Amino acid sequence: MNAEIITVGTELISGKTLDQHSQYLSRECYSLGIPVYYHTSVGDNDKHLYDVIQQASLRSQLVFICGGLGPTDDDLSKEILARFLQEELVQDSEVLAHLAKFFAKRSGSIPPNNFKQTYVFKNGVVFQNQHGTAPGLAVTKNNVTYILLPGPPKELQPMFETSVRPFLMQLLSNQSVIVLRDLAFFGIGESRLEEVLYDLIQNQSNPQIATYALDAGVILRLTAFATDQEEAQRLITPLEKEIFRRVGNYCYSTKNESLEEVVFQSLNQQKKTVAFAESCTGGLTTHLLTIVPGSSKVLKGGLICYTNEIKSSLVKVPEEILETHGAVSFQTAKWLAENTREQFASDFALSITGVAGPESVENKPVGMVWIGLAEEGKTTRVYQLDLHGSRRRIQLMAAKYALFILQQRLKKGEPKK
Amino acid sequence: MNAEIITVGTELISGKTLDQHSQYLSRECYSLGIPVYYHTSVGDNDKHLYDVIQQASLRSQLVFICGGLGPTDDDLSKEILARFLQEELVQDSEVLAHLAKFFAKRSGSIPPNNFKQTYVFKNGVVFQNQHGTAPGLAVTKNNVTYILLPGPPKELQPMFETSVRPFLMQLLSNQSVIVLRDLAFFGIGESRLEEVLYDLIQNQSNPQIATYALDAGVILRLTAFATDQEEAQRLITPLEKEIFRRVGNYCYSTKNESLEEVVFQSLNQQKKTVAFAESCTGGLTTHLLTIVPGSSKVLKGGLICYTNEIKSSLVKVPEEILETHGAVSFQTAKWLAENTREQFASDFALSITGVAGPESVENKPVGMVWIGLAEEGKTTRVYQLDLHGSRRRIQLMAAKYALFILQQRLKKGEPKK
Repeated sequence: MNAEIITVGTELISGKTLDQHSQYLSRECYSLGIPVYYHTSVGDNDKHLYDVIQQASLRSQLVFICGGLGPTDDDLSKEILARFLQEELVQDSEVLAHLAKFFAKRSGSIPPNNFKQTYVFKNGVVFQNQHGTAPGLAVTKNNVTYILLPGPPKELQPMFETSVRPFLMQLLSNQSVIVLRDLAFFGIGESRLEEVLYDLIQNQSNPQIATYALDAGVILRLTAFATDQEEAQRLITPLEKEIFRRVGNYCYSTKNESLEEVVFQSLNQQKKTVAFAESCTGGLTTHLLTIVPGSSKVLKGGLICYTNEIKSSLVKVPEEILETHGAVSFQTAKWLAENTREQFASDFALSITGVAGPESVENKPVGMVWIGLAEEGKTTRVYQLDLHGSRRRIQLMAAKYALFILQQRLKKGEPKK
Repeated sequence: MNAEIITVGTELISGKTLDQHSQYLSRECYSLGIPVYYHTSVGDNDKHLYDVIQQASLRSQLVFICGGLGPTDDDLSKEILARFLQEELVQDSEVLAHLAKFFAKRSGSIPPNNFKQTYVFKNGVVFQNQHGTAPGLAVTKNNVTYILLPGPPKELQPMFETSVRPFLMQLLSNQSVIVLRDLAFFGIGESRLEEVLYDLIQNQSNPQIATYALDAGVILRLTAFATDQEEAQRLITPLEKEIFRRVGNYCYSTKNESLEEVVFQSLNQQKKTVAFAESCTGGLTTHLLTIVPGSSKVLKGGLICYTNEIKSSLVKVPEEILETHGAVSFQTAKWLAENTREQFASDFALSITGVAGPESVENKPVGMVWIGLAEEGKTTRVYQLDLHGSRRRIQLMAAKYALFILQQRLKKGEPKK
């Protein structure tokens, strides 16, 4: 079985909005062992969409159609598919009840335009929409299965998780359960990770292994097909163990958490607080941690000391240190971290000072970054990084490395498993 | 003439990478008055790509093919197009010279694999690649023009700007110049902007008006077609004047600059410095300014006072203020801004304190944000915002508003035009 994805909307082909569904659904299909061969975007145009669906029916056994399920006149995906398949649409009482409830919370009664959303394929399957009004639909004809999904990402993705993936598992029928495990890595590049795990990636078919690059870091996705959860675990556990034996140091999460969330949880569990002194990152490191709700429990704050004047006046780095070694140095990173920890009376403090570019500073190359980690009653550790890429890239990687260094430290603090 | 865009690469259909070319090229085509009807992504697969090209040749007069021009064996776009069109490929001496120069700077000589990149359509047009090895190509047959562009965005976009847009202008032939003017707005939503300019947007055909939403803010793109620059200016000037009359207050740039860049330039021109006190944004505001190279000329730094303890201990906000009015208040915003300006000895200081959510704080609703602007010898101004959306959204909008408020202030400082 191979699939293709059709996204519908004039806003896509006019360049107003970026299609992100095709990437999301391709990854999910790949995890299910279903290859995707084509992505197509087409406008809210009767004829164009009809032609695209017709063509898909000739070359794919699974066809996703995203968008065009809304209440307005130019939302035509369902109607055009019904016409193409010569399949009847009937009103669904469950969807009708859902819409009544949905609008009761808001305007009161169902707006006239929305009634078309209560019509579904007579011989099809309905996926209830927990986050909007348009249900998802599936219908199979001539050995091709068509899956219609609502356009808004906040509706499409939960619907896929809760309803579509199980539906596809049944369709694949040869498997009864699938278990996904996403291992999140930082500090090791995608290519290096594939190199170290080459034999596993090549020889594994079940569990399957795939890598996906993040803005900073890499996801390693393990996908196990099995008859039950237990068997899936039996398949995943030894593979995961072997992966951890080789590159475990670089793995910060196995539960779809961001690095920031992991740092927050570790600090929170260990009842520790942190503060930051940021130079080249200009506040990004601290901000990343504040993206996590409740971060005020562990974060005291930070000092953005962008000039040497502020480094000495507010963070109290001795001027001779700045004169002798410069702002981008082991010594300055050390002082920044220690003084910040004292001023904020926090358990940990990290400092980030470096050259983000495009110009070199103090004859130090672009990408040179020093990170200090100060801790009450412990010797301050200082790490040197040699980063590459644009100014923004260097700032992001420096900030993430600071959080990763803290996470590594907190990991050690936990009891060995 | 209508166009379609084909992006080539197994990394696209497997979901490894996100296609951003289709959106970019669609916007550019739209600006040229060329409607785009289809986006298609296909893998590095001989037959699939051949079929997609064949189909495109039957329904479009302009076909973009992006990617698959690299040196490796699975880079096949050019070869497959040549086979489909029965068009001859010949070695191009200029491209050969460019590659020799390119690799002389690096490994020394041209790697064997890269020689295939020196072959171009005998009856085609070549777009030199200033940022990589694969040249862009154009060839016309049976009234369909095919444009091959390299996959890397940092190669494709400059190539479009410098070579492809002029080429398309010639192709359109009915016009000899096109002038684009992107007006960047903040503080007014896309729908509100379209409302206020409705009559202009509806009645305008030349210049054409289109809106594009940014992460924060909106771009209004004016496109004028004319026989020469002067005429284009004559077309744009009165329209721009009318737009400014209606919503000029919200426009921060007409030169494709980010809000951060505009704030930096204004501060730099006026030889002023700034510092920030950030609570709910956790350092994001300061960081945004540090994305601009050279920002150390105008930015002294910032204090991230995430807890009340730090607000009073480091930023010296009187405890009675925090107790009486709370951290999220007019008074706290005022004290934060004033004390920060003093501590950093800067010309301006801005404070941002609010409720980013998901929980409300001090019985204050999620999205309530106070921004203080302190200035030497002037009364501190405090602004209240009522923001909506996710925690990240509220943080981003609060940070951008702080910069926008500073930019508005700096604008007034400039001599009236």
